[in-house]
Amino acid sequence: MSSAWEEVAGGGVTSAPGFRAATVAAGIRYQRDDLALLVSDEPALAAGLFTSNRVQAAPVKYCRARLEPGQPVRAILVNSGNANACTGEAGRRAVAQSADAVAAALGCAPEAVLVCSTGTIGVPLPVDKITSAIPLLPARLSPDGGTAAAQAILTTDTRAKTVALRAVIAGVPVTVGGMAKGAGMIEPHLATLLAFVTTDAVVTDPAVLRMALVAAAEASFNRVTIDGDQSTNDSLLLLANGRAGHPALSPGAPGWDVFTAMLTEVCRRLAYAVVADGEGATRVVEIRVRGAADDADAEKAARAVGRSMLVKTSWNGADPNWGRVMDALGYSGADLREETVAIDFDDVPAVRDGCSAGTAPQALQKVMRQPAFCLGIDLGIGRGEYALWSCDCSEEYVRINAAYMT
Amino acid sequence: MSSAWEEVAGGGVTSAPGFRAATVAAGIRYQRDDLALLVSDEPALAAGLFTSNRVQAAPVKYCRARLEPGQPVRAILVNSGNANACTGEAGRRAVAQSADAVAAALGCAPEAVLVCSTGTIGVPLPVDKITSAIPLLPARLSPDGGTAAAQAILTTDTRAKTVALRAVIAGVPVTVGGMAKGAGMIEPHLATLLAFVTTDAVVTDPAVLRMALVAAAEASFNRVTIDGDQSTNDSLLLLANGRAGHPALSPGAPGWDVFTAMLTEVCRRLAYAVVADGEGATRVVEIRVRGAADDADAEKAARAVGRSMLVKTSWNGADPNWGRVMDALGYSGADLREETVAIDFDDVPAVRDGCSAGTAPQALQKVMRQPAFCLGIDLGIGRGEYALWSCDCSEEYVRINAAYMT
Repeated sequence: MSSAWEEVAGGGVTSAPGFRAATVAAGIRYQRDDLALLVSDEPALAAGLFTSNRVQAAPVKYCRARLEPGQPVRAILVNSGNANACTGEAGRRAVAQSADAVAAALGCAPEAVLVCSTGTIGVPLPVDKITSAIPLLPARLSPDGGTAAAQAILTTDTRAKTVALRAVIAGVPVTVGGMAKGAGMIEPHLATLLAFVTTDAVVTDPAVLRMALVAAAEASFNRVTIDGDQSTNDSLLLLANGRAGHPALSPGAPGWDVFTAMLTEVCRRLAYAVVADGEGATRVVEIRVRGAADDADAEKAARAVGRSMLVKTSWNGADPNWGRVMDALGYSGADLREETVAIDFDDVPAVRDGCSAGTAPQALQKVMRQPAFCLGIDLGIGRGEYALWSCDCSEEYVRINAAYMT
Repeated sequence: MSSAWEEVAGGGVTSAPGFRAATVAAGIRYQRDDLALLVSDEPALAAGLFTSNRVQAAPVKYCRARLEPGQPVRAILVNSGNANACTGEAGRRAVAQSADAVAAALGCAPEAVLVCSTGTIGVPLPVDKITSAIPLLPARLSPDGGTAAAQAILTTDTRAKTVALRAVIAGVPVTVGGMAKGAGMIEPHLATLLAFVTTDAVVTDPAVLRMALVAAAEASFNRVTIDGDQSTNDSLLLLANGRAGHPALSPGAPGWDVFTAMLTEVCRRLAYAVVADGEGATRVVEIRVRGAADDADAEKAARAVGRSMLVKTSWNGADPNWGRVMDALGYSGADLREETVAIDFDDVPAVRDGCSAGTAPQALQKVMRQPAFCLGIDLGIGRGEYALWSCDCSEEYVRINAAYMT
């Protein structure tokens, strides 16, 4: 399948024809561009997935309501530095005022504008700074603006996360591009922090677009964990402007498989980039569980290991303490028999029949010192499988989070 | 109720008459006394609670089997430095050999000997070192040996955890004393790491003794969390030798309430000491949830907050980032409405109606800089309550755990 598309060099959320972006320094929290506007030149079909946290940021509530009627979208405004969460009625007003200001600046309906925020929870959003900066954005809109937009939406991230792929579908080139921000408070269910994907593919049925996005998220953003904390602001938005002009895609139609695989791959690359840039992270670990009673058990096992502080700190020190993996499997809730568990670090055996495989610790350490490795776990009792990306937990993670607000 | 007993100065697991302890340096891992023997001069009634982890250390399996028939106990052997977990058949043989060696040294039945281990998982237990050291222990047994025993069972703990209380029951003095070790991999369900409690109270029905222990554990060891990892070795053992000579205690009998309250208080003080000495911990936080739909929801809310890495790191830096508490409540699974949540740091309001209470951050920081404070959370929708002790997560926690094994 990977040969079905090519990567767009330096590509991102504005690589698909018909999308432009602009950024500006609104002075919300950072001394840099902190406000990004993504525009679709024509009304785009939109799909969105949001946090399942019971405490939801004002912009999440707003986007959810906007997307429900299948309303076409023209623009997404994103600020970093302030989550606009736990901000009550003032927070809700701030979102509406922001959307109105964008609509006025672009000459579109407020209903066609989505708004996203990321940053500190519980601090009133300085909406005047945002509405003052919005009029500066239309003149700056550019098809090359994706990279700057990917920078502007970052918080404690250390680098922009951006990718675009292109394939031929029904005889015409189709692009899927995206950007994401992550870093902390990452344990998505249904969606992740902020991720934006655009495409010129033709999809006309909102339910079909949503189905494609749900499947892509399940295989990507739902399979990462950094610190087990699920954010109030997680949002994954997909815009399809139909500019490619091929016959509309739907399940079974020519090109559907390529389109959905490419969408999934864009989401996977963005999700991987989020884990690799986790707060204080120095390495990515793919936890690959098989041999579980069923897939749900395999997921329980993988998540327990991927969340365990003791496992994640041992990865940080390249300490081959596989006993902590056994411990996490034991309390994961997955059905297991200690005596049938096997664990590999890449292709180096660490555990067989629930006990040490007798491998020299140095051989395991060599694997663990890489920037990425695979922790293979075989529960040995069934055919259930699951894979999850996690990262190590470093002293830097604590340093960042002990003084984030102050 | 607190006036019903007095604290025994310097008291511990050998404060109750008829209990003695000894320690020796067996050279298992540390260059210090690492093997402790606790002896009851007469056969004692025993009750035990153990980890619910599916991966269980060999000594846990052994003790569980021993205790099931209500067999009287004469001795408990405890080693630190090696968990004897994930060690297979060799691990099981090591426990049996250790029990046999203690039985031979004391002249009692092997069935009357319990064995506990704590330390690294997956490393073969050097049982020869243990069986060679055991014959040295009987001559060292002393009613003053409780303090040294509490030291010998430590791993990454920084201080011994020991307490004894005494009350008059049915006209005679009755003592309850104990010791515990904790530090890492602490998130008990049913019991905690290693804790040993002795009493000269007269309880003759094993089911009654167990009932008293379950109630005490529920109000103490089950209400602490350090890192959310539940150990393979958690064990809480209670020995009652009946030496006090009063009429046997059972629910409704004179003295039952005082005995069970004193037992609970001993367990609470040990559990608090475990949290206060959590790996890298600098402060204890009592999370007190009320106003939940029911007690189960209150527990979900308290545990989500108490486990959250972002909340725990913010405590470390005395960073009044209450938004992270709101976030954890939101994904806890507890029923809640954002708009009715109130949060206090001790008696300083941080959140009202789900938004900032307008308190200056400095006032919250002042509370957070204390060695202990109470995080009061009112969900504002019902009458459910739960309280949990947690601690902060520091860079030192990561430092300890990034290189525990190597």
